[in-house]
Parts: sequence; C-alpha cells; structure tokens
Amino acid sequence: MASSQESRYLTGDVAAINEFLDKFDTFLIDCDGKRTVFVTNNSTKSRAEYTKKFAAKGITCTEEDVFGSSYSAAIYISRILQLPAPRNKVFVLGEAGIEAELRSEGVSFLGGTDPALRRDITDADFAGLADGSLLDPDVGVVLAGLDFHVNYLKLATAQQYLSRGRAQFLATNTDATLPMNHAFFPGAGSVLAPLANVAGRKPLALGKPSQAMMDAIEGKFHLDRARTCMIGDRLDTDILFGIEGRLGGTLAVLTGVNKKADWEAEGAVAHPAYYVDGLSDLLAAGQ
Amino acid sequence: MASSQESRYLTGDVAAINEFLDKFDTFLIDCDGKRTVFVTNNSTKSRAEYTKKFAAKGITCTEEDVFGSSYSAAIYISRILQLPAPRNKVFVLGEAGIEAELRSEGVSFLGGTDPALRRDITDADFAGLADGSLLDPDVGVVLAGLDFHVNYLKLATAQQYLSRGRAQFLATNTDATLPMNHAFFPGAGSVLAPLANVAGRKPLALGKPSQAMMDAIEGKFHLDRARTCMIGDRLDTDILFGIEGRLGGTLAVLTGVNKKADWEAEGAVAHPAYYVDGLSDLLAAGQ
Repeated sequence: MASSQESRYLTGDVAAINEFLDKFDTFLIDCDGKRTVFVTNNSTKSRAEYTKKFAAKGITCTEEDVFGSSYSAAIYISRILQLPAPRNKVFVLGEAGIEAELRSEGVSFLGGTDPALRRDITDADFAGLADGSLLDPDVGVVLAGLDFHVNYLKLATAQQYLSRGRAQFLATNTDATLPMNHAFFPGAGSVLAPLANVAGRKPLALGKPSQAMMDAIEGKFHLDRARTCMIGDRLDTDILFGIEGRLGGTLAVLTGVNKKADWEAEGAVAHPAYYVDGLSDLLAAGQ
Repeated sequence: MASSQESRYLTGDVAAINEFLDKFDTFLIDCDGKRTVFVTNNSTKSRAEYTKKFAAKGITCTEEDVFGSSYSAAIYISRILQLPAPRNKVFVLGEAGIEAELRSEGVSFLGGTDPALRRDITDADFAGLADGSLLDPDVGVVLAGLDFHVNYLKLATAQQYLSRGRAQFLATNTDATLPMNHAFFPGAGSVLAPLANVAGRKPLALGKPSQAMMDAIEGKFHLDRARTCMIGDRLDTDILFGIEGRLGGTLAVLTGVNKKADWEAEGAVAHPAYYVDGLSDLLAAGQ
C-alpha cells in the first residue's frame, strides 16, 4: 500500500487500476457497480433532490445511496444531541435541503427558506432582536449551511440566538468555496463566517471531514472500513475524511479543487493513497 | 501619568477631572468646547449625514469635525494608493456613506447601493461571474464595509474581483460587532468575513485602530499628539488607536462595549490611561 506520503498514479496503468478496484468492496462517492455511496457536503439539496439530479445525468441511484451533510446534521440533532423539549428547536441558515432532512427526522425548525426573512432589516427588527421579543425561546440550536439567500436580517437573528440564547452552533459543513461553472464561489463556511466572527466561536461541522458523518455512514451501510475507499477531489474534506476514518484507501481525482502540487506542498492537509486524472479513466479500465 | 497597566478612575473626582482636562487641547470623539474631532468606524453614513445626526441630538458640529472610516478609506485610495488608470475603479460592498466619500474624492466605483445587485443570484450570474463577462476589468480595489443589504450576489461578485482579478482588498474597518439598541449586531468585520474566508487574505482596514487614519487626522487638523486624547468605549479600536498613535492620553468610557475587567484580563489588547463611568460625569465636572 502506498504510504501517506507517496500517492500512486493510476491513470493509464490498467494493472494498477484493477489491483485498486479488487481491493475495495465499497466506494464512497463513485458509481462503478460495487456498493457506492454518494457523500456530499452540499446542503442545499435533499437526498431526494440529489437522486433526481443524478438521474437527469444518467446515473441511477436511489435516495438511500446518497448521504449529504444536511442529512448528517439532521441525524446528529435527532439521534445524538437529543435536546430535551421544549428548548430543542433549530434556527436554520440555509436552503430547502436542510429543511427537508430536518423534517424527515422530525426536528422542529424555523428560519431557512421562510419568506418572512427574505427582506431588508428594519428598525423594528433591530429593536425586537435586541429586546428578545422577536426571538423564539425554544431555539436551542443554530444550524448553518450554504444559503444563496443570506442577508443581514438572517445573520442578525442567528447571531442573537448564538450570543444571547447560547444556542449550540452546528454547520452542515465549512467548505470555504463552492465549485460552480469551473470557478469558485462562496461556500457554506464563507456564508456562515459572519456568525463565527461575531459569536467568537466555531460551529461543529457535520459534513466531510467530520467523523460524525463517517460514523453515521458506517452505521447505516454496515460497511467494512478496510475494504472501503473514499474518492473525491478535495484534500481538506474528501481525502482527509477517508484518512481520519481509517478507510482502506483514498483516491484523489484531479478534475476538481486540488492538484498534485497541493499534497506535495509542505504542511499539506492530507495525502491520498491513489490518484487519477479523471474518474472516467478509472471506470473505462475497470470495466 | 498613569502607566499603561494602571488606569486612573475619574468619575466623581473633580480635581482629577480638571487635571485631565487641562492636559489636553484636542479630544478625538468628544464635545466639550475644546477642539473635538468625532472619529467613527461606522461607514454607512457620510460626514454630512453624521453632522445632521448630531444636530438632531443637540450636538453642534460641522462636517469638518467628523472623521469617518469611509472618509479615511476614500482618502487612502485617492491620495495614497493612487492606482494608475484605467484599472483604478472600486467595487464597494457597503452603504451610501462609502459612496458619498468616494465621490467627494473623485474615485470611480460600482456596486454599493446599486439596486441591480439587490436581488437573488441567478444561473446567468454564476455563468457570467465564472467566465468574467459580468466583471468590469477596470476594478482594481474591493472596498468592504458594513452593508445592511449584503447578499450572495454581492459577495460572489466581490470574491471574483479578489480571486480572479487580484484586486486590492480594503475595509473601512473590521469591527466584529455593531452596538445597536443596547445589543450587538454583525459589524463590518463580520459582514466582510465571507470575503476574507474565501479569498484567504485579510483586508487592509482603514478605520480605527489603523494608523493610516491617525496620520490622515493629524494631517488634516494639525493637532499636537502629546496634547490630544482619544476617548472611546472599545479597547480594540478606540483605546488601541490612541496608544499606537502615541497620543498624550486615552480615556475609556464604560457605557459601551468594554468594561474594566476587559483591560484587567490577561492579554488585554489595550489599557486606557483614564476611565470614567459615563462621559456626562466628566463633562459636568469640567464645566
């Protein structure tokens, strides 16, 4: 096995690819015929929506094959945190994907896509947030994720729950960037940065590389970690997630965020065991 | 003179107050009859708007007595930075106060309060920002301040200028919190935190405690630093500003953000030379 410092290049090397494929029963994020689990930090879509998105791209999978950071967060809140009623409501900074997963776990929430919060802050809001009259005393958690509709009113409201209410601070994930259209846009970690900055504390992140997510995946799929490989393009989420989860292998795909130079640099956050230029090379050889 | 570790309590001690008042010719942020300069990090209002606000509260001053972080930033851009045309436009994340001061210094800008940016981001925006077609190639600076209308579209646009265009990153100030209605709300430093997070670099802040601001104030008012006292409620902006500016004195007023315990704590960011419970005590005794 390649050491953590030596990453094995697989593209074009059919023998090495077959050796690699033989080594694992389960691939997290992949689609090659063995058991595959799609693990995503994107919190804006629910598992059901992901399944539809994949279907539109010709990838057949069921909702049960998808494991997202919203689902991971919902499971953490409902099954691990288990806050006693009545102070167990969640204020959401994020999109419909988070709401769908909280609903599926029976967790009460407010905020999120509520149209009442999609507007400018007013003097009455400042007054009502300051004196607490606009706050729900039953909120015990602020859950933040990627929100394309972030605004000052939502940030100020979430902040009051964190500062005055001492609500627990959770995040679906803290990716700084969101890859879109071959460029980078603000990710969940950047959208929620104002809350961390003003509250002076960081959220507990429940997406990759959080091992709370790995534990939940293992619990659900009963996978053998030694024969499971994490495949992804980000060192600080995907590859680190696999290494810290003590999986049998990690495979970096160079089509995304990170390049070879990133893990060869001093102080690199994680070293993949294997890497390929693109996932299609691997799939073609393995078939 | 009190050492930086021993802060002298003035409230109720008329002799000490008079001794204090005799010591200085100029007070920054104050209103006691000697030369006073109102130094504010709030970038949302222009100097003219501040003058009106003070007048409404019965405080008489002229626009020339106000020195705000927006004005400081505008002066820095126009007189210090002096970027060569054509790549000298400023993309503003902030309110009308920044725009007014940039205009007064003849600096071209876009963004800011432009209604075209006060909406949800669309797929066309993602595409146009990613391929650069929506970006103005003449933008050489991103100037961020407090923006009550912050949204994902503005953040994504500013980020593209910072990341792709390598624009210079300036901030009016980086206060984490904004005191309002006796509570704390997200300040400029929190509103712009997504940009710092995603771009991986911090802005040059031109409000307190930046000494660029002190130099500009000294240049404008020709004050004698040894006979100038900085009065304010925040250790990390006001008091630090006075100490790093080598002013004759600093006076903490305990009606605001910081309390005595804050500078007595280990690793305190700054120690005021003097402190009072409220500014009114001081003014009453000094008259």
